[in-house]
Amino acid sequence: MLSKKPLILITNDDGINAPGIRFLIEIMNSFGDVIVVAPDAPQSGMGHAITINDTLYCEPITIEKDAPQKEFTCSGTPADCVKIAVNEILKRKPDLCVSGINHGSNSSINVIYSGTMSAAVEAGTQGIPSIGFSLLDYSLEANFEPSEKFIKKVVSECLENGLPKGVVLNVNIPKLSGKNIKGIKVCRQAKGHWSEEFDKRTNPLGRDYYWLTGKFINEDEGKDTDEWALENGYVSVVPVQFDLTAHHAIKDINNWTL
Amino acid sequence: MLSKKPLILITNDDGINAPGIRFLIEIMNSFGDVIVVAPDAPQSGMGHAITINDTLYCEPITIEKDAPQKEFTCSGTPADCVKIAVNEILKRKPDLCVSGINHGSNSSINVIYSGTMSAAVEAGTQGIPSIGFSLLDYSLEANFEPSEKFIKKVVSECLENGLPKGVVLNVNIPKLSGKNIKGIKVCRQAKGHWSEEFDKRTNPLGRDYYWLTGKFINEDEGKDTDEWALENGYVSVVPVQFDLTAHHAIKDINNWTL
Repeated sequence: MLSKKPLILITNDDGINAPGIRFLIEIMNSFGDVIVVAPDAPQSGMGHAITINDTLYCEPITIEKDAPQKEFTCSGTPADCVKIAVNEILKRKPDLCVSGINHGSNSSINVIYSGTMSAAVEAGTQGIPSIGFSLLDYSLEANFEPSEKFIKKVVSECLENGLPKGVVLNVNIPKLSGKNIKGIKVCRQAKGHWSEEFDKRTNPLGRDYYWLTGKFINEDEGKDTDEWALENGYVSVVPVQFDLTAHHAIKDINNWTL
Repeated sequence: MLSKKPLILITNDDGINAPGIRFLIEIMNSFGDVIVVAPDAPQSGMGHAITINDTLYCEPITIEKDAPQKEFTCSGTPADCVKIAVNEILKRKPDLCVSGINHGSNSSINVIYSGTMSAAVEAGTQGIPSIGFSLLDYSLEANFEPSEKFIKKVVSECLENGLPKGVVLNVNIPKLSGKNIKGIKVCRQAKGHWSEEFDKRTNPLGRDYYWLTGKFINEDEGKDTDEWALENGYVSVVPVQFDLTAHHAIKDINNWTL
């Protein structure tokens, strides 16, 4: 148990004005002192990008008058937001970082493209317990209400128990009404990939260009995966690590003649 | 053994004109048919960013007259380059994707920020054996010559043996003369993180801005790590996976009251 009010850092990748982060801020105000440092514009699909060849702006902003949280808007990526929050804005290391609520899924392989999860991972590398939340609904009018009790559950358990070193949580919430969500399942990341189809067009000057489109292919039939949980009406919680070593493969590669 | 000449996709994150990729192309031409699809400008620190809210250009380009490789330049990120190569440009799935040679280290936690490695990981998600190469020298005048024999060794073993499913290789080469490189070590990713210091300045209009700077902290004393290998004069080879599940933590989190 924490003896004082926890300090909570909130960020996201859809930008500081997105409904998902506004809803998350409201929830987190009931847990502790909240500081928001979030991108000034949408940063979806930014992965773990950081800004190294450009300048960063980061300034206080008031979005809700008389609200308890302090907010800052940053010109950089989600990972930049965490770095600048921890090193320039916060007086001490936060007790928790939460990122989201993302508008759209970050299950399976989507975790590697996700700005939401990269912010959580960045905080994890700094030794901060950290959780990314995503709702499987891309709409700006998404209904976040059913997420509330599950977010509160995961957050209070995380504040109570902490997280294993080097681990952050990837929480995805199905697009269902509250009473149709069956509960929470701790899962592994389903094996899957994106199969792209590029939409080729010609611009008014006669030059070809492309839009990236594609569909997600789930290669995994396991019932212990995030995809299975979400398809079957559960909130998925995947413990995610940033030690990317494929430890099981070291022996194989050591058999090569190197 | 492959019965026909392998088809090799080359990309990077420093841009198609960077000395590192030009050197890698020269090496890879000795292994098979080479197609280059690389960013039209530097994309360092882009992590696994993809372009989903903007258009992509991707066009043929001739950089070296009468050279055997075919080259395309793309306005997107390293991960975009792989996606568009595999889905729009190549007639069949390549036998190998190589990314780099990056100007600078991608060892330890740098793997998560690295555009070079994200390109390799993206190819891995598409089922393509894939390797990222980096030289520990940021200079545009870096000497890539000593890398050649080690790159050839890793590539020929990879073409011969393939890679375990879901695994790509992160190869880092120390900045040493050829005779001072002691050999190749298969390693795990060292535990480490970046400690940032933001350089705060004021622009001519009186608005504050920041430059991200920082130093890498190696938290790991293990002699089986990439950091140890590189500091001790070895080329490091880390098998990297994109299943980010912290499998060991599932049991811990299952003990929570969720």
